This record gives sequence, structure tokens and C-alpha cells, in this order.
Amino acid sequence: MTKNNDAVELHKMLKGKIEICSRIPPNKIFEDEATDKGILDLIYTPGVAYVAEQIYRDKELAYEYTSKWNNVAIVCDGTRVLGLGNVGPEAALTVMEGKSILFKILGNINAYPLCIATQSKEEIIRFVKLIEPNFGAINIEDIESPKVLEIVEILQKETSIPIFHDDQHGTAAITLAALINALKIVNKRIEKVKVIIAGAGSAGYGIFKVLNKAGFKEIIVVDKKGAIYEGREDLTNTLPIKSDNNNEAQKVTGSYANSYKIEIASKTNKKNTSGSIESVIHGSDIFIGTTGNGNLLDIKMIQSMNYDPIVFALSNPDPEILPEDAKIAGAKIIATGRSDYPNQINNAVVFPSIFRALLDLRIKDIDENILIAVAQSIADLVDLKHLKEDYIIPKINDPRILPIVTKSIKEYILSQGNNQ
Amino acid sequence: MTKNNDAVELHKMLKGKIEICSRIPPNKIFEDEATDKGILDLIYTPGVAYVAEQIYRDKELAYEYTSKWNNVAIVCDGTRVLGLGNVGPEAALTVMEGKSILFKILGNINAYPLCIATQSKEEIIRFVKLIEPNFGAINIEDIESPKVLEIVEILQKETSIPIFHDDQHGTAAITLAALINALKIVNKRIEKVKVIIAGAGSAGYGIFKVLNKAGFKEIIVVDKKGAIYEGREDLTNTLPIKSDNNNEAQKVTGSYANSYKIEIASKTNKKNTSGSIESVIHGSDIFIGTTGNGNLLDIKMIQSMNYDPIVFALSNPDPEILPEDAKIAGAKIIATGRSDYPNQINNAVVFPSIFRALLDLRIKDIDENILIAVAQSIADLVDLKHLKEDYIIPKINDPRILPIVTKSIKEYILSQGNNQ
Repeated sequence: MTKNNDAVELHKMLKGKIEICSRIPPNKIFEDEATDKGILDLIYTPGVAYVAEQIYRDKELAYEYTSKWNNVAIVCDGTRVLGLGNVGPEAALTVMEGKSILFKILGNINAYPLCIATQSKEEIIRFVKLIEPNFGAINIEDIESPKVLEIVEILQKETSIPIFHDDQHGTAAITLAALINALKIVNKRIEKVKVIIAGAGSAGYGIFKVLNKAGFKEIIVVDKKGAIYEGREDLTNTLPIKSDNNNEAQKVTGSYANSYKIEIASKTNKKNTSGSIESVIHGSDIFIGTTGNGNLLDIKMIQSMNYDPIVFALSNPDPEILPEDAKIAGAKIIATGRSDYPNQINNAVVFPSIFRALLDLRIKDIDENILIAVAQSIADLVDLKHLKEDYIIPKINDPRILPIVTKSIKEYILSQGNNQ
Repeated sequence: MTKNNDAVELHKMLKGKIEICSRIPPNKIFEDEATDKGILDLIYTPGVAYVAEQIYRDKELAYEYTSKWNNVAIVCDGTRVLGLGNVGPEAALTVMEGKSILFKILGNINAYPLCIATQSKEEIIRFVKLIEPNFGAINIEDIESPKVLEIVEILQKETSIPIFHDDQHGTAAITLAALINALKIVNKRIEKVKVIIAGAGSAGYGIFKVLNKAGFKEIIVVDKKGAIYEGREDLTNTLPIKSDNNNEAQKVTGSYANSYKIEIASKTNKKNTSGSIESVIHGSDIFIGTTGNGNLLDIKMIQSMNYDPIVFALSNPDPEILPEDAKIAGAKIIATGRSDYPNQINNAVVFPSIFRALLDLRIKDIDENILIAVAQSIADLVDLKHLKEDYIIPKINDPRILPIVTKSIKEYILSQGNNQ
């Protein structure tokens, strides 16, 4: 494909999409070549020693005297990169460099890609704790689930900086924003619609949590085994086995009682419907795909949905159905995660501004309520005059996003009293 | 002190000396606000997925399609920051940001400060292995010795990228460069001079190794217990105990058979002289201080040295003796590690260009011969016409350093045949 070749040629030419820059111009550092009387003795030895001593006495000063306040680490083990799967840390690096650019351009944040050579849950957790002194926040990215969901849960408890999981939190916020506006077009209400979420990984789990909290009453989450329901055989162990990629038995069977799926089962699918995606999608109003499976949906399945179906085929790079096919099938509103189609439901719309707020407000805990506040603020950016089938959410680079998202988070935090 | 306050005020104003920048201008990414048709779909999803797939098939392509080729991690545990000692990772961060600026301005290298929250040798080693996919080389920095010497030795064997230890390798190269030129002024020869190296940590050990290889015959290294000699009580255990900061017994006694000191004892001080610095400095030609002790030398000690004494008081921020006092004592040539005195013997003169060569030539192994080649090339930059007591080495920002150092390393590598 030409587009793919273009991407390779561009990367070959760039040899890296990001770089480290000095915030001080070189001519200030070495002001006068003859006498060498720049500020080198302030930013480096001996002057910097005094600054270091001050931070030693009060670690909080690292937020004032270094870039910590504005540094985010993008931590990835390369196991679930886009829809590609386990391609390893080197391959993940190019994706994370792209992500870092968006952090900078859209949020003015220094995002350090750290794609690491381990897939062990324990090592990833320990790694994040080791780098904590350098960063104001952590973004966990493209790590396979359910391992990653446990990692995030544990790190949120055991570190003192915000741990954001874009695949889970960011995707959920932007999906809800898009849904709020899509429902306005088809004139249906949150409490009344039937939602199918395909995929119970990070994105599927995150979306379920936020939609559930936002008041959606009828949600069915589908994984490779079909609809998730309470009592499904693989979810009935009394002791949920936590994921551990060193556990060979689990690798062989490929199934274990995922505690996140047990949570999904207990809070969705009240009628305990079983069956494949083909069967449960019947009569639904909304399909949200987060499977990484580029051929999940066919035209017939969309045709079996309720009137004015909403189809969010969010997997990257290959959506669950191509927009042109979804259109033929009669989908009323179609969205993907890609920038080359309209309605890009990509966490890139929200993560730079959410991180800006987390850093500026020193927020430790990300919860569903914050994500709902963000979603509502993003949805509101599309006024009814401009709202239409192929414009339900603002574009990634809409300059209104940063101020509105940070404002919405600030207001939510204030409404809750002291969050810290 | 005003200077110290200046440093704090500057850091408070900057709030971080470095930042991550996009190598692509924002207006190219989102070229047209209305149609959003920039190159976002090439640098991010979906296009980047194809690039990632290529790297997955051939990891070497990470050097071509990402910034790995030009990325260096500055890894520090905060245990031996400048002469300050164990001030912790947050305090170390401001020093490493300063270092990162020099990497960029002088070597055009992206240097990521990673100041980590562990002091365990094993964890530091594992940490470097975890981040290897992102970096073309590693700089180990300001970690206490002898732990750090073991870390470097092990990592050099067990990783596939160059592991450089600036406190050890960089300091040794620039010290030898300065010595070569200082000896020209006093008209003494390498084979004939008596050298005292005070401090047997990273810098002292590195300098000993390089001077020894370069042909200095009479070296005495002094630590807190006095001159190091074969058979000294603390160095006589048959099994050298490796350092381990989890070993409480060692912490309590504060002494164990440091294998690096045993190596020093076996290769220096042929007459097995014992005694304090006050006693062994008597009659020496050269003093090199790497102790972190700002009051080690007094005027009497310099007066006891041979004629035309050379005094390199390299500890930062407080040199072993202030240059003004060394001058009063009759030192012929005086150098420090600081930028606010003449003759700054600071590894910053060499590390940016050495790293440039390591990265460009994909050199895995740093040995004393490379450091000697670098030292000679730096020394040669000061021609005899300009050579004088207060100008024995070029300034940090001398633009001739980068090309001459990379050339000297390239020539050395070529002379050795295939280094890889």
C-alpha cells in the first residue's frame, strides 16, 4: 500500500519523531567564547549542587526546580500495540514517539517513551515505582489485558503520582463523549438504549465502567467466547486467578477466571443472555468495537440492529468493519479510531488535556466521574447547529479542547471538596 | 551566597532545563484545520502501525525508524551526586537535566535523565536491561562506588549497547589530556613522574586505569585509610567481598575487600609505601584529587611536593584545595572541575563527543585505549603557542572537540580492525 510506504519513508527520513531540547539557548550558556562566562556554572556544577541540596532537603521542590511537574512517562511492554498485538518494545517505540508528539503539541507535556524489555506484571509495577522521582504522572500504554488492569490498579494504590491508562480511561471518556452526541442525532436516551461492547480488554473494560456509571442500563460485553454473563463457566471459579504471564498452565489453557470479566458479568447483561456477537447484537442500538479484530462485523449483523444503528468500530489500525461497508449496511452514525475517516474516536482527543489537568492540579485519583465530566465537556463542544452524522466529536487538534477539559476537571474536583 | 541564590532563582524561573520536542512542526501534522489533512495518519495510527510491524520483523530497524540511534539514558540512583553524596533521585534530577543540555548542545544527543528510586545493585542492573530497547547507549552517572564499578562491568557484558560511565571513563580521558599538556609545560616525562591519586572511587579508579595504561610508572592511590598497597589489611581477604548495599554487616564495619582496590594495589605503588596523604604526597610531581573532600589539601602538603607541582583538585562543587590557596602554596599548574576557574577538568569536555562516536560508530566496548586516543586528541587541540599554566585544555564548548574526538575514535577502531 502506498500509504504504508509513505509512513515508512517518512520515518526513515526523520530518524526519530521526537528529541530532547534545551530550554536555554546555547549562546546563554557559553555567552562569550573567549571568557566562557555564560550561566554554565549555574545550570551545571558548581551552582546546580546548591539546587540539588535544596531538593534533597525538601523533595517537593523537584516540582519547582526541575521538569518533573511537566514530565510523563509512557510505559509500554509492547504486548498489545494498537491492533498488532505482541510486537515487542522496539516496535512499540515508534508508536509511543507519535504519542509523545501529541502530548507535546496538544498538551505542552514532556512525554518520555519507555518501552521496556519485560512482560512480567511484577517487573512492570516495580519499573514504574523506580522511575517515579522523575515524573509528574505515568501513562500506561499498550500492555495486554487483564495484566494491565491489575498493574494500573496496584500502581494507583502504591505510587504517589497519577497513573493514567489511556487505552482504558482515555478511550472510555472519548467514547462516551461521542455517544452522548450520537444519541442526540438519533433521538434516543441513555437509559433506553441497548449497547454491545465487543472486546473485554482495557478499552472494553474502561468503556463498560464509564457507561455503567453514566447511566446506561442495558450493556452486554462480548469477548471471544461470546456474551459475558454471570455464571459463565470460565468465570465461576470461587477464587479468581490473577493473570501472570509466567504461569504456564494459564498460557496453555488460555482461560482463567479474569476478575475484571467477573465484575463485568455482575454489572451488565441483567438478563444473563448468552451467545455469540451475531446473536446478541440483534436489536441493539449501539455497537462499540474494541477487539483488535478487523473483520468482526458484517453487513448482516448491522442490519439486525435496532433502527438508526450507531456503529463505533474503534480498533486500530483495522476497524471491526470499514466505514464504507457499515454505511452500506445502514449504520446511521459511524465512527472509527482512525484519523483518515470522519468521527475519530481516539483517546488522543482527550489524553493531552486530561494529563494537563492531572499535572496542573496534582490530582492523584482518576475515577469514572472525572471521565464523565470530561466526556460531557467534549460533547458540548459540538453545538447542535454543527452536529451531524459525520461530526459528532471535535477533531483531535480542536484548540477548544484543552481549556474546556481542564476546566471541567477543575470544576469537578472543586465540587468534590479536597481531592488530595 | 549570591551565586547559589542565582542558581535557585534561575531554576525556579525555568521549571525544568530540558523538554521533549516534536521534530515535526505542528502545522505539518494538522495541515489544514478545516479538513484535518496533515500527516497525523502517517506518524500515528493507522500509518505508524505499518512502521511498527516492520520493526517487529527486524528489530535493527528501530535504529532507522525511531530516535533510538540518538538516545542515551542517564541512569542515576542519587547516591553519589557531585560531591554532595547520597541526596536521592529527586535532587539528582536537576544535575542530570544540566548534563542532558550538554549532551544536546555539544553532541546533538537526546539524553533522558532517569533518576531511579532504588540503590540496589541488582535492581539498577535490571533497570538498565529493561530500558535497553529505547536507547543507543547508556550513561551511568553519580552512583556510589564500588557498587557502580560492578554495575558497569556486568552491564558491559550483559547488554548489547555501549555502557559508558562518565565519572570513571570520561573523567579519566579528560584528566589524561590535561596531564599530557601540563607535563609539556613543566618539561617532565610520563615515565618519570610520581602521581598521587586521592580517592579510589569511580574517578580515582578510572584515572588509575588510564594512567597505568598510558605509561605512568609511579602511581600511588590514596583512600580514606591512606595509601593503597598490596597486603593492606582490609585488602587481604582471599575472597574479595563484592559490594552489596543490602549487606548490613558491611555497612556496620564500613570496610570490605573491594576488588577494585585490590586491582589498584597490584598495579600501583610498587614499593608498597604506606601512610597518609600527608606523607605519600611528599616528593610527588602530580596530585589528582577525586575525593569529594573540599579540605583535603593544605598549603604545607603542596609545598612538600617536587618542583613545579601539578595540582588537579577535581572534586565538585568543592575542590580539594581552592586554586587561590594552591597558588600561594607554589603549585605550578592548577586545575579544578569547575567552570568558574581556568583549566576546567570536567568530563563534560569529552562525554558529548565520545557518545557521538559511540552512537555513530555503534561501538560496544569502551576500553582504556579509546580513552587514551581521545585524551591525546584533546591535548593536541592546545597548540604549543597557546599552551600556558592556565590554558592546558580546551574549554567545554570548543567547537573543535566534537570532530577531533570522533575522528580519533574512528581511527583507533579502524586500526584495530573490526571492533564489533
